[in-house]
Amino acid sequence: MTTKNKQVLLAARPQGAPKESDFRIVETELADPADGEVLVKNLYLSLDPYMRGRMNDSKSYAASVGVDQVMVGGTVGEVVASRHPKLKVGDVVVGGLGWQEYALSRGEGLMRVDPKKAPLSAYLGAVGMPGVTAWYGLFDIGKPQPGETVVVAAASGAVGSVVGQLAKLHGCKAIGIAGGKDKCDYVTKELGFDACLDHHDPSLKERFREATPNGVDVYFENVGGAILDMVLARLNAFARIPLCGLVSQYNATEAYGVKNFGSLLTNRVTLQGFIVSEHMERWPAALADLAGHVAAGRIKFRESIAEGLDSAPSAFIGMLEGKNFGKQLVKIA
Amino acid sequence: MTTKNKQVLLAARPQGAPKESDFRIVETELADPADGEVLVKNLYLSLDPYMRGRMNDSKSYAASVGVDQVMVGGTVGEVVASRHPKLKVGDVVVGGLGWQEYALSRGEGLMRVDPKKAPLSAYLGAVGMPGVTAWYGLFDIGKPQPGETVVVAAASGAVGSVVGQLAKLHGCKAIGIAGGKDKCDYVTKELGFDACLDHHDPSLKERFREATPNGVDVYFENVGGAILDMVLARLNAFARIPLCGLVSQYNATEAYGVKNFGSLLTNRVTLQGFIVSEHMERWPAALADLAGHVAAGRIKFRESIAEGLDSAPSAFIGMLEGKNFGKQLVKIA
Repeated sequence: MTTKNKQVLLAARPQGAPKESDFRIVETELADPADGEVLVKNLYLSLDPYMRGRMNDSKSYAASVGVDQVMVGGTVGEVVASRHPKLKVGDVVVGGLGWQEYALSRGEGLMRVDPKKAPLSAYLGAVGMPGVTAWYGLFDIGKPQPGETVVVAAASGAVGSVVGQLAKLHGCKAIGIAGGKDKCDYVTKELGFDACLDHHDPSLKERFREATPNGVDVYFENVGGAILDMVLARLNAFARIPLCGLVSQYNATEAYGVKNFGSLLTNRVTLQGFIVSEHMERWPAALADLAGHVAAGRIKFRESIAEGLDSAPSAFIGMLEGKNFGKQLVKIA
Repeated sequence: MTTKNKQVLLAARPQGAPKESDFRIVETELADPADGEVLVKNLYLSLDPYMRGRMNDSKSYAASVGVDQVMVGGTVGEVVASRHPKLKVGDVVVGGLGWQEYALSRGEGLMRVDPKKAPLSAYLGAVGMPGVTAWYGLFDIGKPQPGETVVVAAASGAVGSVVGQLAKLHGCKAIGIAGGKDKCDYVTKELGFDACLDHHDPSLKERFREATPNGVDVYFENVGGAILDMVLARLNAFARIPLCGLVSQYNATEAYGVKNFGSLLTNRVTLQGFIVSEHMERWPAALADLAGHVAAGRIKFRESIAEGLDSAPSAFIGMLEGKNFGKQLVKIA
């Protein structure tokens, strides 16, 4: 017996912003699981900015996706057939099974999760990789002290929203930056940040200065570009910069030149680039903490859910332009 | 009784590169030491790139020099009169007594040194602040492992020359960058670096790639600008960047835009700005180590010595243009 499997392949390496024609949707057939394998039916696919980097051929912190290969991505799904000793039919598993309806796996990188503890999709967001990214970067690198000012951009997104809420729970002042009034209202009114600035605002710099009268102690960096320069100019002595993304640069064909690099010297800043999958030893503590906050309603999140695998390319393209509002997901089944 | 004292004052805040007219030389009179004070006759003055920042009014890691105030600077001198309980006439002291022939001091920041253990001027170089800057940045931030590649610019200078020699003593590969063939020859033939590249070389990037076939693990950053971008493009995963200066930017009226900032993310780099005077707890270990290496001839250094305090402004201006060869000093007496 075989299973029909729809997949999204990388059709061509994008120049600048990806186009729909850079993807190709195909239908293939999957064999039944061999001994030691499970067949997983993917329910949700996570769309994340880092995937843009994987579409390039250049050196990055992870291998490129090959042309004609299935796009990589985090998934939550259900085991529908198993010849694996530890996973049984009906188990719900989080993993990185990619942009496809089904996948065979030997179980590497699959983690069983409890659908009663959090909504399934949350395991791809606040209680998943984006949440752990926020938690690890903020606490292990940012080392915020109560009373300090923490700044994060893409503040309504999957990572930024958790950064700010964790900062508030820790007794810090949380300042967000986001695109548009709706997102900013959500960030302050729903998520409880102290302020959120619209990066479209022509007087953004003045607003930012007003919002950070005591300077900036932790800048959780995920966007880069002009916002990075603006924040660098407001850093306090001994500020910390956890660096997990530069989404404003992912589609850029010419790199932005960072003018205020000197602030890292004059303020004796510690900056650290990281990728959370290289710190698996911290995931259990992070996930336990995040699950507790989500269950208690202390961490809220919002999702943009695209319906069906066919919509994944356009949803991904839109996310890189900031069209999503909250964590971008694709509901596959 | 009073002592005639020649001093160099900051006459005007420079725009871009400082000019001689930004300084003013005056003669004043100093009273005899009051109770608890010493009178020190300065023998050598250290000229260092950081002083350019002190001439600005902008926020920096240390207070600006006021207009009409004596320029700040490290000195080695001899106690010529004392009403201080612990310092006596004839003691040789290192401190920060500024661009002047004499100074009264209550002893704060003065450290007695032994003229038999190292040449007096070395206490302003390899066995002084520049040496400790190299030692602290390389070991405490750079954390090099034997076999790794360490890169430093201004490689024939007071800091860079010690960075590379310490790296070699530690079993690393040391690659220098310096201005001109003479300096590069000195860096490789006298100081023992594995390679030194001339930053005037039009094919610098290719030469640098050839000199770093295994990438760069530690970049001791003291220059910034285009060289920073070049090195960022060659960093290895988990590289470290101790950041102690950006001398190419000190005279710039428009900041250089750093293009390869993204390398800090993709390579999960740790960058840390520092100023060595904030880490006094490490000085005894550093100075003991450096003095041992200098005494044994394992660390060599070269000096450019300007004669007389009157020559300090032009020597300083020249140093910022790279005209010095080795540690820039002024012999005051």
